[in-house]
Amino acid sequence: MSKPVKTAITPTRAEDYPEWYQQVIKAADLAENSPVRGCMVIKPWGYALWENIQRGLDAMFKATGHVNAYFPLFIPKSYIEKEAEHVDGFAKECAVVTHSRLEAGPDGKLVPAGPLDEPLIVRPTSETIIGETYAKWVQSYRDLPILINQWANVVRWEMRTRLFLRTAEFLWQEGHTVHATAKEAQEETRKMLEVYADFAENHMAMPVLKGRKTDGERFPGAVDTFCIEAMMQDRKALQAGTSHFLGQNFAKSCNIQFQSEAGQLEHAWTTSWGVSTRLIGGMIMTHSDDDGFVVPPRLAPQHVVILPIYRDEQSRAEVLAYCESLKKEISSQRYDDRPVQVQIDDRDLRGGEKTWGWVKKGVPLRVEVGPRDVAANGVFFARRDTGEKQGVSRADFVAQLPATLQAMQDNLLARAKKFREENSREINSREEFYAYFTPQNKERPEIHGGFAWAHWNGSAAVEEQIKKDLNVTIRCIPLDNSSGPGTCIFTGEPSRQRVVFAKSY
Amino acid sequence: MSKPVKTAITPTRAEDYPEWYQQVIKAADLAENSPVRGCMVIKPWGYALWENIQRGLDAMFKATGHVNAYFPLFIPKSYIEKEAEHVDGFAKECAVVTHSRLEAGPDGKLVPAGPLDEPLIVRPTSETIIGETYAKWVQSYRDLPILINQWANVVRWEMRTRLFLRTAEFLWQEGHTVHATAKEAQEETRKMLEVYADFAENHMAMPVLKGRKTDGERFPGAVDTFCIEAMMQDRKALQAGTSHFLGQNFAKSCNIQFQSEAGQLEHAWTTSWGVSTRLIGGMIMTHSDDDGFVVPPRLAPQHVVILPIYRDEQSRAEVLAYCESLKKEISSQRYDDRPVQVQIDDRDLRGGEKTWGWVKKGVPLRVEVGPRDVAANGVFFARRDTGEKQGVSRADFVAQLPATLQAMQDNLLARAKKFREENSREINSREEFYAYFTPQNKERPEIHGGFAWAHWNGSAAVEEQIKKDLNVTIRCIPLDNSSGPGTCIFTGEPSRQRVVFAKSY
Repeated sequence: MSKPVKTAITPTRAEDYPEWYQQVIKAADLAENSPVRGCMVIKPWGYALWENIQRGLDAMFKATGHVNAYFPLFIPKSYIEKEAEHVDGFAKECAVVTHSRLEAGPDGKLVPAGPLDEPLIVRPTSETIIGETYAKWVQSYRDLPILINQWANVVRWEMRTRLFLRTAEFLWQEGHTVHATAKEAQEETRKMLEVYADFAENHMAMPVLKGRKTDGERFPGAVDTFCIEAMMQDRKALQAGTSHFLGQNFAKSCNIQFQSEAGQLEHAWTTSWGVSTRLIGGMIMTHSDDDGFVVPPRLAPQHVVILPIYRDEQSRAEVLAYCESLKKEISSQRYDDRPVQVQIDDRDLRGGEKTWGWVKKGVPLRVEVGPRDVAANGVFFARRDTGEKQGVSRADFVAQLPATLQAMQDNLLARAKKFREENSREINSREEFYAYFTPQNKERPEIHGGFAWAHWNGSAAVEEQIKKDLNVTIRCIPLDNSSGPGTCIFTGEPSRQRVVFAKSY
Repeated sequence: MSKPVKTAITPTRAEDYPEWYQQVIKAADLAENSPVRGCMVIKPWGYALWENIQRGLDAMFKATGHVNAYFPLFIPKSYIEKEAEHVDGFAKECAVVTHSRLEAGPDGKLVPAGPLDEPLIVRPTSETIIGETYAKWVQSYRDLPILINQWANVVRWEMRTRLFLRTAEFLWQEGHTVHATAKEAQEETRKMLEVYADFAENHMAMPVLKGRKTDGERFPGAVDTFCIEAMMQDRKALQAGTSHFLGQNFAKSCNIQFQSEAGQLEHAWTTSWGVSTRLIGGMIMTHSDDDGFVVPPRLAPQHVVILPIYRDEQSRAEVLAYCESLKKEISSQRYDDRPVQVQIDDRDLRGGEKTWGWVKKGVPLRVEVGPRDVAANGVFFARRDTGEKQGVSRADFVAQLPATLQAMQDNLLARAKKFREENSREINSREEFYAYFTPQNKERPEIHGGFAWAHWNGSAAVEEQIKKDLNVTIRCIPLDNSSGPGTCIFTGEPSRQRVVFAKSY
C-alpha cells in the first residue's frame, strides 16, 4: 500500500494548528461536542485513554499512601463564600442549582419549582466541601495525616471551550490532604508534583518542566501553587497538572483544628492537587502528526491491530486462522503492567480505508496478514511513530513485542524532548524577548516563540505588561534553578533565577 | 481474648433493624451523611468496596462486548420532556440548574446570576442525553449494535434518604445499547440481567431472584423492566439491579433511525441497565451481624489483617519481623483475580479496641501474632463469618488461604440462601397472605413476612389495594416459572404463575 500524497488530516499542523487538533480528535473518534453547551461526549476510544490514565495514576497514588473516597457533587453557597480568594476565583463561572423539581407552568410547559433555601454550586473543585467534612474527622494529631483522593466530574462555566483542553464539565482527580505541620504539607505538595511529572514523562511520554507559579497565577486560596508545564507542537505551553500548598487558609475557613502532641489546639495544614481529562489534549498535541493521533504504548487502548487480507473464501479461512493464533500469541506477551492488547479487524471495508482508520486512531502497531505471510510464517508490520514498515518472522515479532513497544515509548519521549529543546531559548534582552514572541514571517505567522528562559525581577506589573503586549505569561519559576541569579531583562533589577515565559493554552 | 457479653453493635438486628444498619455503617466507617441535604460522603473503606464492585462488573461488561464512554452531567429540559412517561417519572425530584454564576447582590451577599436560556437538569439517568447523541452516530445497520456503558454520578431529589439505599446523589453505572431488531435488544436486556445476577451471587454472595416488573413498577419509558431482587435480614426485598427493554420509545423520541440492510429507514431498539452504590447497602444488610459488617472475600478491601501483640521492645522487634515476613508470604498468594490483600495494624491502641475495630469493619481474616506464635512458627487466626478461631502452622495457613477465603465466600452465599428459603413461602389464600404480612407477636413486631409466592390475576387494581393495605408490592414476576398456572388468591381468576410479594426498600 503506497502512502497517499495528501495527509490523512486536513489541515496539517503547519496550515492551521487549532483546526488540525479538532480534526485529529474527530478522525480518531476520541470525543465530540455535546448538545449541552460546553460539555463534551468522551467517545469509547477517548474514554479508554482516560481509563488507562486512571489506572496508572491511581496505582501511583496508592503506592504513595493515598486512598480514594467520594464527596458530594453540590457545595452550599455559604461554604464557597468562606474563603475570600477562593470564591473570587470560582463565583464568576459556576453552575447554580436553585430548584428541586419541574412543574407544569401556566402554559402547560415545565418550569423550575421547589426553590431551594440556599442555592447549591456544582463543584468546580472541592476544597470547601471536603474541608468542612475533614473538620469533623480531625480531633487529634493521631487523626493525621489524612491522605485522600477523589475521582470525579467538576463544572466550570467556561465561555470558550475546546475539547479536552477547556470544557464546562470535565473529569479529574483531586487529592486533598491534611497534615499536622507546614513542613509535612509542603513535602506532600512536592511529592505529588513529582508523581505527576513521573506520570507525564514515563507514561504519557510528555516531557514537563516542574515549577512554581507566580502570585498572579496561583490557585485561588493557595499559598503556593506548583505545576508541570509541557510544550505542545505549536510551541505553546500546556499546564498539565497542579499541586497546591494551601497553608492554613482552608483549615481556618473550614475550621480544621487538632490537639497537638503537646496538647495545643492548632489549625491543620492542607494540600490539594489535580490532573484532568486535559491530559488527553496534551497527549494529542505532543505526539500526533499530520496523519492523525499517535498514542504512547503505555496508554494505548490497543497495542496491536491485525488486519487480515484475502481474496477468496479459501484464503480467507487460512488467513483468519493464522490471525487468530497470532492474536493468542501476542496477547500472551506482557507490556508494562498488562497483557499486550490486540484485536483483529475483519470488518468488511476496503483495505486502504481500514488501514488509514487505524493510522488516524494512533494504534502503535499495525500487522497485515495475507496468504503470503501465512505461507512464510511471517508478519508484515508498521510502526505508527516512525511509519517504518518491516517483514519479520512471526516468532521474532512476538518475542520482540515488549521491546518494540518500549522502543516506541522511548522514541516518543525523546522526540518530544528534542522538540522542546529546539524551541527553548535563553533570552537576555527585552528586544530579543519581544522579537521572539512576535511573528517574523508573514507567510508563516505561527512559526515563532517557544519557551523563553529569561531573568525577571518578580514584579507583577512587569508580568501584566508582557501579558498585555504579547499574550505571553510566566508559565513557571522552575524548581531546577541551575541558571542562577542575574539581571531582569525588563527592568535591569536583580533576578534570582531565570523563569519560563510562553504563550499558553 | 474472650467475647464481651454485649454485641459490638447497639442496637442489635432484632432490637431495631434500621438503626442497626446505620450503626453498622458508622462502626465500619463506610459512609456518613454530608452537610448537603441527601448527599452522602463515601469514606475510604466504603469507597474501596465500590472500587471492587466496579472492577468486577467492568470486567464482565467488557467480556460481553461493551465499552465505556462518558456523556454530559446536564440534560436540557427540552430533552427530558420528549418522552412523556419518562419526564413524569423524573420531573418531580430533580436538581435544576438555572444560573451560570454568582454575583454580589444589593446587600453584598452573593446571589445567582447569569440566568440560562433553558434550565438544565442534573442527570437522574441518561436515556435522553445519550439517545440524542446516538441519533447522530447511527445512520446504517452497519453502525449497530452500539454497546456502551458509563460510570457516573446521578441525582434524584429524594425526600427521605438512607445511606447507600436512597440518596440524592449516588454513583452507578448505566449501560445504553442500540440494536437493529427487537429480538436483539431483548436478548441484550436479558444478558445483562444475567450478568447482574451472576455478580450478585458469585461476587457479593447475595442470592437474587430474577424477574420481570409489573406494569406499575416499570422504569418510566420502558416496555419491559427486569430486575434482581434480594432478601435482606429483616426479610424485606431490595431491588438490586434493573435491565430495561426500551422498545422504540426512546429511539422515537430521540430520533434514532437507521437504514436497514433492506434499505428501509427504521427506528432502532434500545436498552438500558444499571446498578448503583445501593449494592453496598445490600451487601451490608445481607451479611452483617450484631458485631458489625461482614464483607464477602471477593469484594474485601483487605482479606487479612495482622495484629502484632508484644509486651516489650525485644518481643516487639521479634514479633514485627515475623509479621513482615508473614505479610510477604500472604501477599504472594492469589485469591480470585488479585493478590491476597493484607495489612499489619501496628497502631498504638489497646488490643481489644484494635481487634474489635477490625471485627466491625468486616475484614475476613484476623491474625494475631504474639511471641508464642513466633516461637512455634504458627498463626492464630479468626474467621469473621463464623467467629471460629484456630491455631495452625504458618505454612498451612498461607497455603490454605485461597481455599479458606473461598470457603468463607461460599458459606456467606449458602447462609444467605438458607435465610431466604426459610423466609419464603407459597401462599394459597387471601387470609393467609394478609396474616403473613401482619405482625403476629406484639413483642416482636418485626418478625413476620418475607417473600410470598402467590398466584395473582395480573390486575393493577389488586396490586394497588395490597400496597395500600399492607405496604406490600409485587417484587417481580419470576423468570423461573416452575410454579405453573393457578388461581389468583385475591380474585379467584386464572393466574399464569406465582409472583413474589414482599415489603421492600
